[in-house]
Amino acid sequence: MGDATFTVDLNADLGEGFGIWRIGDDEALLGMVTSANVACGFHAGDPAGLLAVCRMASIAGARVGAQVAYRDLAGFGRRYIDMDYDDLFADVAYQIGSLQALAHVAGLRVGYVKPHGALYHAVIDNPHQARAVASAVHAVDPTLTVLGLPHSLLFREAEMIGLRTVAEVFADRAYRPDGTLVPRREAGAVLHDPAVIAERAVRMVTEGLVTAEDGTDVEVRAESICVHGDSPGAPHILAAVWEELRAAGVDLQPFC
Amino acid sequence: MGDATFTVDLNADLGEGFGIWRIGDDEALLGMVTSANVACGFHAGDPAGLLAVCRMASIAGARVGAQVAYRDLAGFGRRYIDMDYDDLFADVAYQIGSLQALAHVAGLRVGYVKPHGALYHAVIDNPHQARAVASAVHAVDPTLTVLGLPHSLLFREAEMIGLRTVAEVFADRAYRPDGTLVPRREAGAVLHDPAVIAERAVRMVTEGLVTAEDGTDVEVRAESICVHGDSPGAPHILAAVWEELRAAGVDLQPFC
Amino acid sequence: MGDATFTVDLNADLGEGFGIWRIGDDEALLGMVTSANVACGFHAGDPAGLLAVCRMASIAGARVGAQVAYRDLAGFGRRYIDMDYDDLFADVAYQIGSLQALAHVAGLRVGYVKPHGALYHAVIDNPHQARAVASAVHAVDPTLTVLGLPHSLLFREAEMIGLRTVAEVFADRAYRPDGTLVPRREAGAVLHDPAVIAERAVRMVTEGLVTAEDGTDVEVRAESICVHGDSPGAPHILAAVWEELRAAGVDLQPFC
Amino acid sequence: MGDATFTVDLNADLGEGFGIWRIGDDEALLGMVTSANVACGFHAGDPAGLLAVCRMASIAGARVGAQVAYRDLAGFGRRYIDMDYDDLFADVAYQIGSLQALAHVAGLRVGYVKPHGALYHAVIDNPHQARAVASAVHAVDPTLTVLGLPHSLLFREAEMIGLRTVAEVFADRAYRPDGTLVPRREAGAVLHDPAVIAERAVRMVTEGLVTAEDGTDVEVRAESICVHGDSPGAPHILAAVWEELRAAGVDLQPFC
Repeated sequence: MGDATFTVDLNADLGEGFGIWRIGDDEALLGMVTSANVACGFHAGDPAGLLAVCRMASIAGARVGAQVAYRDLAGFGRRYIDMDYDDLFADVAYQIGSLQALAHVAGLRVGYVKPHGALYHAVIDNPHQARAVASAVHAVDPTLTVLGLPHSLLFREAEMIGLRTVAEVFADRAYRPDGTLVPRREAGAVLHDPAVIAERAVRMVTEGLVTAEDGTDVEVRAESICVHGDSPGAPHILAAVWEELRAAGVDLQPFC
Repeated sequence: MGDATFTVDLNADLGEGFGIWRIGDDEALLGMVTSANVACGFHAGDPAGLLAVCRMASIAGARVGAQVAYRDLAGFGRRYIDMDYDDLFADVAYQIGSLQALAHVAGLRVGYVKPHGALYHAVIDNPHQARAVASAVHAVDPTLTVLGLPHSLLFREAEMIGLRTVAEVFADRAYRPDGTLVPRREAGAVLHDPAVIAERAVRMVTEGLVTAEDGTDVEVRAESICVHGDSPGAPHILAAVWEELRAAGVDLQPFC
Repeated sequence: MGDATFTVDLNADLGEGFGIWRIGDDEALLGMVTSANVACGFHAGDPAGLLAVCRMASIAGARVGAQVAYRDLAGFGRRYIDMDYDDLFADVAYQIGSLQALAHVAGLRVGYVKPHGALYHAVIDNPHQARAVASAVHAVDPTLTVLGLPHSLLFREAEMIGLRTVAEVFADRAYRPDGTLVPRREAGAVLHDPAVIAERAVRMVTEGLVTAEDGTDVEVRAESICVHGDSPGAPHILAAVWEELRAAGVDLQPFC
Repeated sequence: MGDATFTVDLNADLGEGFGIWRIGDDEALLGMVTSANVACGFHAGDPAGLLAVCRMASIAGARVGAQVAYRDLAGFGRRYIDMDYDDLFADVAYQIGSLQALAHVAGLRVGYVKPHGALYHAVIDNPHQARAVASAVHAVDPTLTVLGLPHSLLFREAEMIGLRTVAEVFADRAYRPDGTLVPRREAGAVLHDPAVIAERAVRMVTEGLVTAEDGTDVEVRAESICVHGDSPGAPHILAAVWEELRAAGVDLQPFC
């Protein structure tokens, strides 16, 4: 066969309301993403809301993953908490289990785990938090996949104990020459032009490359593309990414 | 063989601390009970504490059940909350799932569900809350047993959808002639003499009878005896019950 | 002067987000209401969000009141909780104090207290909860006004200990002939036509009357009109009420 | 009289239970301390429990202060949380206000503020968290005193805006030659012999000196001595300190 075929997963955060409060349009997103990172109640997500999202995901045919986080509703899980190994290990297991039950009620199975917010960043280089997350995932179900950043301690710990890892990229974020993201507080960290974002998404998947802020090309491992559902213009961006990937012959399918 | 053999289960609430706070001596109780009702984080129980209890139960050979409750740490789940069906259904599923994961990490399987505190009382006669609890248990795992009061709406709902029910009795509480408990606020509602309590426990199991406050005999279905671990004198009472049952030839074993 | 002059207060709920979650357009409402019922963190309201609302109220010249509630973020304070006197008394005092400090930082003084959601309904006829709220308000600051429903136990308790009470009406709700509201679950309970609502508001203030669902006239004590900021069309309704009242020569001013 | 007279304050943490959970013997401590650091609900302390402590403090004649903390019941405020200035500022104001109301109900006035747990440590060298705490205290009530560690950024910020600061020492902790405490995780960090601790307390007050772990003398500013109520043997240690100070002619009185 002369043509290579590319496939990629599209993931987004869902179920991030709490009680009466809602953010993002979960139903709209579920029409386009292949993997739904569902909150587990610690940074967002009351059980009834989470169950509703699981049921929508079931109808939409999306795979669900557990978006585990620090216990911090007031801070939406975006503030680093200096947790020790034992507490974080148990918190992660608890969260996965709660979503497993809700997903089961909706006829689904939790397929993967992705840390949220400040925990996502902590497990890049915090050894005992990275190990706590990886070990908890493994202890609850060793067939779960870990979704996150390659080169992170989380991936190293996860792979060491035999967990499958899937690497994600951010088509709407500026990259540094070393492959890390430009922090949000810096100018130009977030891209807004749907056409530019969609073109980057395609190149990440088909060439494994992204243009860094200094113009050089950086290699990326693009097994899943993370899209943000709560930013203004998000639906347009997501639609552009979706269409451009399809136009480029890229298959959109869940990684697991 | 000429003698009938009696068996009964002994259950107690465990894991009811939160973070730094602890109540009861979980380790001591686990040496005597056959079923441990483990909190699930809504009225008590931080994940690390719950995991520790599961591990102790695993070592002690006790069966664990999910003690589901209203979300009310400040009130220890002892205050009725007027929850609707959908919210309570999802809250119960969430709680069972969280304990399932922690129990699994400890090498155990959650075998049953018992409502706690005000929810325990509500499901006696609140139709939609009784149905929410029964349906959630069934939706998460139809092999789970429901532990509680016979003649309750919870038991009716549970049995209607095919769940197994196990009836519990209270050896240290006064009964009314109609088989209901004398409310705690009334004089004589709670018995304190270990010998009296132990003798009642034996009669409940071997004869299916208890003497009501008016002196008449009331039939009871004593498949499990609930013991309270946090009252003063609890260890002595539990030890007396345990010894008297064994002396009467009653086998102590988990119901599932 | 031959004409009587009427004045009325316009109150609305504000600060009812939590952390990242927001509902209603607080800034828009603050341009029209004279009294802002600010949440206190138990049903909604993180401290930083509450402080921001107090600062907006200060700029807009609105009076602030403490919207006290059951501790129930997941249920937005809309579920009855069977609290005893001591716990509710202390919870109310705690909430008032927290808002007093934030209001003080914004250069304001908390002028009144209004129960929220299920607590609002409970204090109509629950004796010990009504007394707990009234006593707590009095104990914290006897110059605070209580905003709510006349004929409620809360008003009776409050007036008995010398608290000032201010009665509110709902221009967008159907009334029964006995002066109570038609429950939300019944058809026709909520009115939607801005012109009709505005006309009812004017009549409530200038004549002290409202047409009940059976066509009869009911007397009302309209010292403040409650407007809802989070329903669709709310801004239009509020603007219509505001303009019609002004056109009828009614002075809009805070009651305290 | 030719002799100088020394006075010192004795402070301890109180009200650190939550709902059904209790730690420490608040009533016993209140017979000996002159300043009670009362929790404010964020790391511990339900309103009814806090009000009970305020009433006991009122009877015992102790001064109360607000023990402000990170919002972290599960971690008892002992885990650093990376909060930004605005959120921490508002959280501190909210907590002080809540205790002010409860203290007022008990006939007391909050006289000072002391950060708790991980926040206590953070404000030593975290510039924006130190400034947030100091500014919040000042904004709520500029006559409040700040109790804590000299040489901390908190003291620098507090003094810069005109707040009074009171320095505390720890008679039961080992000191380094530079005047900082030996971290708890190191051997010998905590002293246990009541006689030794009491003798150190007297020397800290009367000579302004403590023997460091290397045997050298370190200067300390001992305006208040912090005693821990929840460690085993705490009552004996506290009694020994109390008696030895009195025997040395030191007056025990609140600093404000």
